[in-house]
Amino acid sequence: MKHFLSMKDVSEYEIQQLVKRTEDMMLGRKEMVHPTTPVFVANLFFEPSTRTKMSFTIAEQRLGLKPLDFQPEVSSVQKGETVYDTAKTLEAIGASLLVIRHPEDHVVQQVASKMSIPVINAGDGTGEHPTQSLLDLVTIYQEFRRFHGLKVAIVGDVKHSRVARSNAYALSTLGAKVYFSSKPEWQDQTLDFPYLDIDEVVETCDVVMLLRIQHERHDQRQSFEQTEYLLNYGLTVEREKRMKPHAIILHPAPVNRGVEIDDCLVECERSRIFKQMTNGVYARMAVMSNLLEDWGIHNEYQASEREALQPQ
Amino acid sequence: MKHFLSMKDVSEYEIQQLVKRTEDMMLGRKEMVHPTTPVFVANLFFEPSTRTKMSFTIAEQRLGLKPLDFQPEVSSVQKGETVYDTAKTLEAIGASLLVIRHPEDHVVQQVASKMSIPVINAGDGTGEHPTQSLLDLVTIYQEFRRFHGLKVAIVGDVKHSRVARSNAYALSTLGAKVYFSSKPEWQDQTLDFPYLDIDEVVETCDVVMLLRIQHERHDQRQSFEQTEYLLNYGLTVEREKRMKPHAIILHPAPVNRGVEIDDCLVECERSRIFKQMTNGVYARMAVMSNLLEDWGIHNEYQASEREALQPQ
Amino acid sequence: MKHFLSMKDVSEYEIQQLVKRTEDMMLGRKEMVHPTTPVFVANLFFEPSTRTKMSFTIAEQRLGLKPLDFQPEVSSVQKGETVYDTAKTLEAIGASLLVIRHPEDHVVQQVASKMSIPVINAGDGTGEHPTQSLLDLVTIYQEFRRFHGLKVAIVGDVKHSRVARSNAYALSTLGAKVYFSSKPEWQDQTLDFPYLDIDEVVETCDVVMLLRIQHERHDQRQSFEQTEYLLNYGLTVEREKRMKPHAIILHPAPVNRGVEIDDCLVECERSRIFKQMTNGVYARMAVMSNLLEDWGIHNEYQASEREALQPQ
Repeated sequence: MKHFLSMKDVSEYEIQQLVKRTEDMMLGRKEMVHPTTPVFVANLFFEPSTRTKMSFTIAEQRLGLKPLDFQPEVSSVQKGETVYDTAKTLEAIGASLLVIRHPEDHVVQQVASKMSIPVINAGDGTGEHPTQSLLDLVTIYQEFRRFHGLKVAIVGDVKHSRVARSNAYALSTLGAKVYFSSKPEWQDQTLDFPYLDIDEVVETCDVVMLLRIQHERHDQRQSFEQTEYLLNYGLTVEREKRMKPHAIILHPAPVNRGVEIDDCLVECERSRIFKQMTNGVYARMAVMSNLLEDWGIHNEYQASEREALQPQ
Repeated sequence: MKHFLSMKDVSEYEIQQLVKRTEDMMLGRKEMVHPTTPVFVANLFFEPSTRTKMSFTIAEQRLGLKPLDFQPEVSSVQKGETVYDTAKTLEAIGASLLVIRHPEDHVVQQVASKMSIPVINAGDGTGEHPTQSLLDLVTIYQEFRRFHGLKVAIVGDVKHSRVARSNAYALSTLGAKVYFSSKPEWQDQTLDFPYLDIDEVVETCDVVMLLRIQHERHDQRQSFEQTEYLLNYGLTVEREKRMKPHAIILHPAPVNRGVEIDDCLVECERSRIFKQMTNGVYARMAVMSNLLEDWGIHNEYQASEREALQPQ
Repeated sequence: MKHFLSMKDVSEYEIQQLVKRTEDMMLGRKEMVHPTTPVFVANLFFEPSTRTKMSFTIAEQRLGLKPLDFQPEVSSVQKGETVYDTAKTLEAIGASLLVIRHPEDHVVQQVASKMSIPVINAGDGTGEHPTQSLLDLVTIYQEFRRFHGLKVAIVGDVKHSRVARSNAYALSTLGAKVYFSSKPEWQDQTLDFPYLDIDEVVETCDVVMLLRIQHERHDQRQSFEQTEYLLNYGLTVEREKRMKPHAIILHPAPVNRGVEIDDCLVECERSRIFKQMTNGVYARMAVMSNLLEDWGIHNEYQASEREALQPQ
């Protein structure tokens, strides 16, 4: 891979390789050769983030890489050129990899096209969020060991969700059946997937992936009764009981407890919400190690091979 | 120890062991085995801090641990649940230890009770600040090599001070005689220690521990003449002259120079204010290494033992 | 060197040694002995900075040092004493070197005079910015392999520029001919260098060093037509064409594209703007390693010597 920007760009084979590499990371089956001179990764988050940034930071250090924590003032980064100049600066002062989040769609992709180092999209506007998608895929694969034929519902504010978009692309590529479920004004007619009612979703799907209601992305803050939303469109205790025995619950977090999902379901037996976070670190390790390997910046090898090379 | 939350929880023996371990750290008599895979410590400061956070950050790195610097936006962390979700997230993505500061009393304790990793209270509201207390104890012990029978005065805004609370508990446990000195409206009637006038304090006590006036904790900012406060309740040059020959001055810092203490006394011969800061790093190393050891996460050993193990 | 505060303090020989050391760092001809116990460098930026701070952070890690990222709240650091207390605190908790930026002139120098560890001035008000100057010198030396007799123009808001000041001192010391070019109200009559018109500058000078228009330093924001400024005082495409064949363009960045310089010239063939950033990391490595060596804190040695010491 050259960059990791969109789940539209990656083939079924590539996704499967990334899922496999993530599991290898988890099991310690692959190890990075920790570099003798520091290899820097710049985390450029032009939008507030704690979870994703922290996850990348940990993943970087687990790979023996040095995170650079760039904290832009929102005021100085309005224009596309400024993002470019910032990225180019980080490249000039020694970053080997850029992780970029930006509030505008496509900005990350534009910047990446002009860089001489690999770039990871850590979320662009309502565009894509491919590493979140990868960790969702890994969590699904852990459960079912396959994607083909699985019924996956993506539930909530589809229109404003980069997570929905990336997952819909990737899951289709992998042969899963993707459904959306959303209140009418949050449906996205540019994406060609069927919409189901939440009550149908819970009875038919293997995976119920809830989306966070992103108040910050709505031009006008829709005033809605939170309880009413939960009852009409969210995952209530009553609905959870109607889910298929093996079905699981996903949510990219942070959760609005009592809005998308009933408070007491966040850590219920079907919930994989905290598991997703754990998987996220390994998924990001897989993506970064893959990019650095493909660019010849930093190599890894099989732990088992290493052992074989030890003197006997 | 399971967590390190309150000086009320720790026995005399445990405090003595922590003081001893702090001195071992200082003298390089104990060393951590630097872990081969990174061990992460999340510093969750839900209240502004530079000094304590920096002290923990250094202590972590001296132990070979990796600090994770979490910067919450104050706006998003009003509710107890959010703190819990944040802490749980950090646990899920790989933190082995949490250091938490929070503006509300008891929140840290509530969160700790639900975690599967050790938690250190780095200050909860007007509750407690046990690592600050430990460093104060170490500084006192360095001077007097005992606690029993020592007269220690805690002077200032007792009511709003978590430092006062933690120290009063710990010093009583250790057999020291604790006095408070405070203007009437800052006295805390829930704590059963005698109040002395500042003029009596300076002539009778071995340790004069000044508290910082925490303007940010007063619901209504009491407008007071700073010089007047110093003259009536603070440590003036004149009062310092009446202190016992061996008596020392402590202050948790940052100092409001000219308010709690005369500007020119901050670095006077009796002052241990900067020494306290130096000790703070070692005290935090002691607490963290103790917790990680007790949880079996990370071990240390005697430097002397290590030498004995070297081939001869 | 004791500290690195001003280009006025350093002799021609010392500058030449620093330039040489920077090139050694670049070529890997010098290496630090990575310390076995962590050596901390505190980066105290009392003024927003991303570029310089990031550059120091990378340089520190390349030298095997541990950066401490101090983030002052602007509100709490108005008074000189507070800066002193902060610096003294960092010293007390274990920093071996301080890198300080401050919005007021001379504050860094005042603090340095009271510290027991080396201090680097990373920019004080409109005073000096000696590490920026060193990286500019290195970039010039890379091009011309000499300073003597070179004609260097410093163009823009001279009056408010610490970069202009440090470079004017250093280049004079090195025997270069320094010219300023500025609109009348931004001339600085306290500095004794001739002013040239921008049209004369481009035709006669070997180095055209543009300054950033620092809106934040102007008491009243001069409302000026940006295009008009570029046409009258900036580097247009037309002027670039009249530059001498070998002449180069420098700019300390961030660039106000289309104001000091035409957008399309930022990455033109003569531009060394991103090269300057790359050089900045090595220049800062040179300064820090020099100071730590001179204070006996941390030593380095020739890579070639090390090889000679290997068993054969």
